[in-house]
Amino acid sequence: MGKVTSEISMSLDGFITDPNAGAGSPLEGNDPGRLHDWRFDAKTETDAAIVDEIYASTGAVLLGKRMFDVGFEPWGDPPPFRMPVFVVTHEAREPLPMQGGTTYTFVADGIEAALEQAAAAAGDKNVGIWGGANIIRQYLKAGLLDEMQIHLIPVLLGGGIRLFEDFDPEGIELRRTNSIETPGATHFRFEVVK
Amino acid sequence: MGKVTSEISMSLDGFITDPNAGAGSPLEGNDPGRLHDWRFDAKTETDAAIVDEIYASTGAVLLGKRMFDVGFEPWGDPPPFRMPVFVVTHEAREPLPMQGGTTYTFVADGIEAALEQAAAAAGDKNVGIWGGANIIRQYLKAGLLDEMQIHLIPVLLGGGIRLFEDFDPEGIELRRTNSIETPGATHFRFEVVK
Repeated sequence: MGKVTSEISMSLDGFITDPNAGAGSPLEGNDPGRLHDWRFDAKTETDAAIVDEIYASTGAVLLGKRMFDVGFEPWGDPPPFRMPVFVVTHEAREPLPMQGGTTYTFVADGIEAALEQAAAAAGDKNVGIWGGANIIRQYLKAGLLDEMQIHLIPVLLGGGIRLFEDFDPEGIELRRTNSIETPGATHFRFEVVK
Repeated sequence: MGKVTSEISMSLDGFITDPNAGAGSPLEGNDPGRLHDWRFDAKTETDAAIVDEIYASTGAVLLGKRMFDVGFEPWGDPPPFRMPVFVVTHEAREPLPMQGGTTYTFVADGIEAALEQAAAAAGDKNVGIWGGANIIRQYLKAGLLDEMQIHLIPVLLGGGIRLFEDFDPEGIELRRTNSIETPGATHFRFEVVK
């Protein structure tokens, strides 16, 4: 299998959603532009290449339940994943096939089981943990993450969900392996040293 | 006068001290190396040039009272500033001249008065707001900051004092004007857009 790699956009003050994000609104709340401008309005060729590389190297996506709930409607059908998506949840539920190659599979027996299923679906490619914050922290804490990609956005949001909150990093060392500047982001890649 | 520019090292999870920092211990607590390695053990020529540029362009330093209390002993005499230092405090106190060009002056009538005194001492050079977090946030919030320098350190600390905590950034826009990678840090410079 490939690597287990997380991928998320974070403001300079550490938030991955704006203060108004919540169930029923898109993950980024009432101001979706600021954290994700680099993927949309402010997208440069370099940003596009980074997104392309992420999609090309990823064979399956893992999501937390909250992110799934918040994203399901705005993502629509076909969803933007175009690959198998595994949702870590507490409630067993039938798989939900969508158009365009995405099937949402719900895994209720823990993060390791979810990763096993995602890895099997990903084959030689990476498993991408695409949020939210809580699920990324859980995989990092459990020693199951090989790499973190953080797109650091030069804005202050002042509230929302923090990527790192109540997180004890004891024993976790990161090594910055890459960083690319674009107008909308600093694209960091960190290896989780094992 | 020059610019009003803040300068601080921050971990990837947003902390400017480690969890054990407190009065009586150095600002960075029990593990001073991690946030400041780029200034000491891991210092490269590029890091050295950045420090040199900061010192050369700064004519006076502003500090918060807590940072002064925590730093006073470890900084020793002569302190590393080698220029006038103004401490924003609530208690009037006689100036404290040290060796090597540093005099600590205590300003008890607010951040604007402290900035005026520092600007007068700085002449054509910059006023450097070198911490802690609270005083940087106050100047940023008051619209008195022209530029923020943040040395982002690729470590997770899990606790300590956050640079951005309970901070409402309403109306504050940053523009990233520079970023330089060294092994120990990503040296960001942000203009506060006015």
